[in-house]
Amino acid sequence: MPELRREPVSGRWIIIATERAARPTDYKINHQVIKSSFCPFCEGNEDKTPPETLAYRDNGSEANTGGWRVRVVPNKFPALQIEGEQNKRGDGIYDMMSGIGAHEVIIESPRHIQSLTALDNGNVEEVLLCYRDRLIDLKKDKRFVYGLLFKNVGFSAGASLEHSHSQLIMTPIVPQLVANEMESAETFYKHRERCIFCDMIQQEIDTNSRIIISADKFVAFAPFASRFPFETWILPKRHEAHFENLQNSEINELANVLKSTLTRLETALDFPAYNYIIHSAPFNINESDYFHWHIEIIPRLTNIAGFEWGTGFYINSTPPEQAAEILRNVNCDHE
Amino acid sequence: MPELRREPVSGRWIIIATERAARPTDYKINHQVIKSSFCPFCEGNEDKTPPETLAYRDNGSEANTGGWRVRVVPNKFPALQIEGEQNKRGDGIYDMMSGIGAHEVIIESPRHIQSLTALDNGNVEEVLLCYRDRLIDLKKDKRFVYGLLFKNVGFSAGASLEHSHSQLIMTPIVPQLVANEMESAETFYKHRERCIFCDMIQQEIDTNSRIIISADKFVAFAPFASRFPFETWILPKRHEAHFENLQNSEINELANVLKSTLTRLETALDFPAYNYIIHSAPFNINESDYFHWHIEIIPRLTNIAGFEWGTGFYINSTPPEQAAEILRNVNCDHE
Repeated sequence: MPELRREPVSGRWIIIATERAARPTDYKINHQVIKSSFCPFCEGNEDKTPPETLAYRDNGSEANTGGWRVRVVPNKFPALQIEGEQNKRGDGIYDMMSGIGAHEVIIESPRHIQSLTALDNGNVEEVLLCYRDRLIDLKKDKRFVYGLLFKNVGFSAGASLEHSHSQLIMTPIVPQLVANEMESAETFYKHRERCIFCDMIQQEIDTNSRIIISADKFVAFAPFASRFPFETWILPKRHEAHFENLQNSEINELANVLKSTLTRLETALDFPAYNYIIHSAPFNINESDYFHWHIEIIPRLTNIAGFEWGTGFYINSTPPEQAAEILRNVNCDHE
Repeated sequence: MPELRREPVSGRWIIIATERAARPTDYKINHQVIKSSFCPFCEGNEDKTPPETLAYRDNGSEANTGGWRVRVVPNKFPALQIEGEQNKRGDGIYDMMSGIGAHEVIIESPRHIQSLTALDNGNVEEVLLCYRDRLIDLKKDKRFVYGLLFKNVGFSAGASLEHSHSQLIMTPIVPQLVANEMESAETFYKHRERCIFCDMIQQEIDTNSRIIISADKFVAFAPFASRFPFETWILPKRHEAHFENLQNSEINELANVLKSTLTRLETALDFPAYNYIIHSAPFNINESDYFHWHIEIIPRLTNIAGFEWGTGFYINSTPPEQAAEILRNVNCDHE
């Protein structure tokens, strides 16, 4: 019998289709590759991108030349544009505004690597530091209320370049999905005086059937109502609403947990396309007792079909308990 | 300057990325095909599907043999299962229930056609009649509160068989996306005593920049806040909440408008993968002054990436005004 499960934060219902329970090899993975002969992200090609907004560099190297380890540049084809005013306006029943914002690319290595897992742990730490630095800098611009850090890997996850990179988009309004998540977490808090994510972490650790990694400060698990096969969330055990408040003492372990989780997915699923998204509180909310930042990793093994578009339900053929077991048992040498 | 547009019913914000304005040929269309040597939907293979729940047949032909024009069968691998009770239950912060429902496949032709547009108009009418008949029959089962009719065409739209078919899934709860749409339309009605979709049709006809087809009883247009390049909606001009109340006098024109719209998309975009979804009111709402059934057609030209997953925003590189102009100008011989 298939099981309907409700994701407690978003309210999404998921169908766990136990009848068609699928192992990793059952998915027809789309390995369509990104074709490119020239890579603007490689060291030596710094003049092929807009000028950098930040780079961690070896001593003495000059901006927009080689010698960097992580480099941040504005996106050459930005989804939102940095100059201008909001210019909110209407036309009959329709509402619109100018698309102002920021859109930056975090280039994770001067080498042409295709996965974050090809970096040493120290370099992964620098990528995370870089996320934090850019978010702290850009949130000073009072036109922006939200910053989204995310990563697209592989053609079917929407990547257009294979050189390992992440993106940061600053938006002038709180995105609907974020607003819904905040509202739902706040409602839970009002009833119970507890953070729903803290409760979730506790229940996952107690149940222990969906845990992939439980470290000192961070936990990775397959969420109860996983939309996608092998969906994985990483949360700090310490209650904290904003990713940019990540403490120096936490970065080393987060880098290890993130790299280990991605390595497990790459090993179990033969280097799938995936997205990860950092869910963090909007800037117009200061300290928050009810929201808890986290990373959602979604491997892109299946195609979204009409049923999902029409209902908001997802059909998942790999129960998260089974996905977690497979990912837990991956042999990770580097740990 | 990119433009942020708000879809007035769902509240979704869309980024129209004018800077990267894309013509049909700019999309790297994924023509990954569905591989199959045997088709269970072709005439003569009736014993390879579960027994039919409905078929429109030539005189004298027997159930589950050849001689049919449209045939409906339960899905062999159903997302939801017809037998059983809801069995709602909880586990800590999580909620779940048994996955009961119905999942049927509407096989649109005994021949191995790959598109609805390969049918004569009269046969398209029978497909629509079949949608209506199955919905009316299945809604008698009081365990179901919603029925979703949809179509997946092509591998990247989630289809697993190429023989042209549609699907009907009956659900035991009102899907979140449908509930949100109803709530938003009801709020609009409370303020204005008018249906938001009726207003939208009127504004689109007046503006005339996004209209693709305006017929006597139906209109097809590119929505103001199109999530996807070449997204197209078809609405009845007569206010009506439920698709299953489609009148006999409307079926002929709807078949023509649907076939013409799909032909235009196939011609302009070189047979893209696409989904269409019929948005209709839940069964627990009888007559409704505020909701208005419609068909949403979404060509699958681009991949959903981290930004969309993290915000609910979509980035669309083809302004709907441009998409509508291209689709309007397709030369359709059969009209």
